[in-house]
Amino acid sequence: MSDTNPEAVLSALRWRYATKTFDADRKISPEIWAALEESLVLTPSSFGLQPWKFLVIENPTVRRELLAESWGQCQVTDASHFVVFTARTDVASVDIETWVNRLSEVQGTTPEKLGPLKGIIEGYVAGLAVEARHHWNVRQVYIALGQFMTTAAILGVDTCPMEGLNAGAYDRILGLEDSGYATAVACAVGYRSPDDHSAARPKVRYETGSVVTRI
Amino acid sequence: MSDTNPEAVLSALRWRYATKTFDADRKISPEIWAALEESLVLTPSSFGLQPWKFLVIENPTVRRELLAESWGQCQVTDASHFVVFTARTDVASVDIETWVNRLSEVQGTTPEKLGPLKGIIEGYVAGLAVEARHHWNVRQVYIALGQFMTTAAILGVDTCPMEGLNAGAYDRILGLEDSGYATAVACAVGYRSPDDHSAARPKVRYETGSVVTRI
Repeated sequence: MSDTNPEAVLSALRWRYATKTFDADRKISPEIWAALEESLVLTPSSFGLQPWKFLVIENPTVRRELLAESWGQCQVTDASHFVVFTARTDVASVDIETWVNRLSEVQGTTPEKLGPLKGIIEGYVAGLAVEARHHWNVRQVYIALGQFMTTAAILGVDTCPMEGLNAGAYDRILGLEDSGYATAVACAVGYRSPDDHSAARPKVRYETGSVVTRI
Repeated sequence: MSDTNPEAVLSALRWRYATKTFDADRKISPEIWAALEESLVLTPSSFGLQPWKFLVIENPTVRRELLAESWGQCQVTDASHFVVFTARTDVASVDIETWVNRLSEVQGTTPEKLGPLKGIIEGYVAGLAVEARHHWNVRQVYIALGQFMTTAAILGVDTCPMEGLNAGAYDRILGLEDSGYATAVACAVGYRSPDDHSAARPKVRYETGSVVTRI
């Protein structure tokens, strides 16, 4: 269905790097931002549960507060956009119920007909401790991070994934306490500054042969 | 840098779905597979540690053994390619050492000059219990899963991410026990069968307004 050239995709993935210094004056256009936002929404997740909320931090005061909890990484305030990826802290009956209702609504069926699927999800979740449910949700959020950074690269947009942050402080600043969601990871998005010397360093990965094995 | 059209990327992401039935006769070309494999290798990870190995299962006997541990999901044997994503079970001194050596080799510097970076990684890892280190590695693997599925969609290749598998049995079948790596997730890759009725169902996601919040 797609006529995108493999070499074009690879050159985008080779071009991307964890941007240290963003051009604070260069903003992502509304059209490109809309596409990036939709790439988040379209992320696949286990059973389709989408156990996440993506917070796009526009308020400069909030960005400065977050910067103070991010080991001083100025990407938080300088990048065009800054997204905090949050994960549901649990998978509760209401999450499964809401999802099955949404499925039936969009697919034009009844929640009753989706009873077997609901049972499968409930059975799976019942086997997980609360902490394991949170870990499971966080892993789904990382699929979103991957899809987001890949999409950005292909659209010529720079990113910097950020785990180096005080998640508890983020939760407090963003009003997430008692919300059922917690900060998992963040990503600064925008355009590299011409002064970012790290852009010129060669990309370093292990050799294909040491990470890919054919069996 | 890229002139890829946002609408082309979005149409690929809307086109993709968790393929239930693959066309067992249709194989991914070597050129496209090489690109998909490189997308795995290029995946970003925390500190660049790449705490993973990607196993591409070609042997049909091994595929059948894995199928028996995958809730009967025939994607395991029918898809053109089947990738098992494994994560390092720990982050040991040797992992950090190997990474710093690789960095210095490719970037043309000495491991000594990278001492401060090494200290930062060691300090971060020292703060994590063994189990937390494994969770951390698994999250990185999910970035790879996201990048891989997104790249595949853009290249017109179907995927089915699979968490529904007996990871312990996979580890046994694949000889991972005592290897320092463990099965995290798998992904079937290939082309949808014209008989896969689930392809025709509308894609279901929550409304953007309920998963994306501007602050």
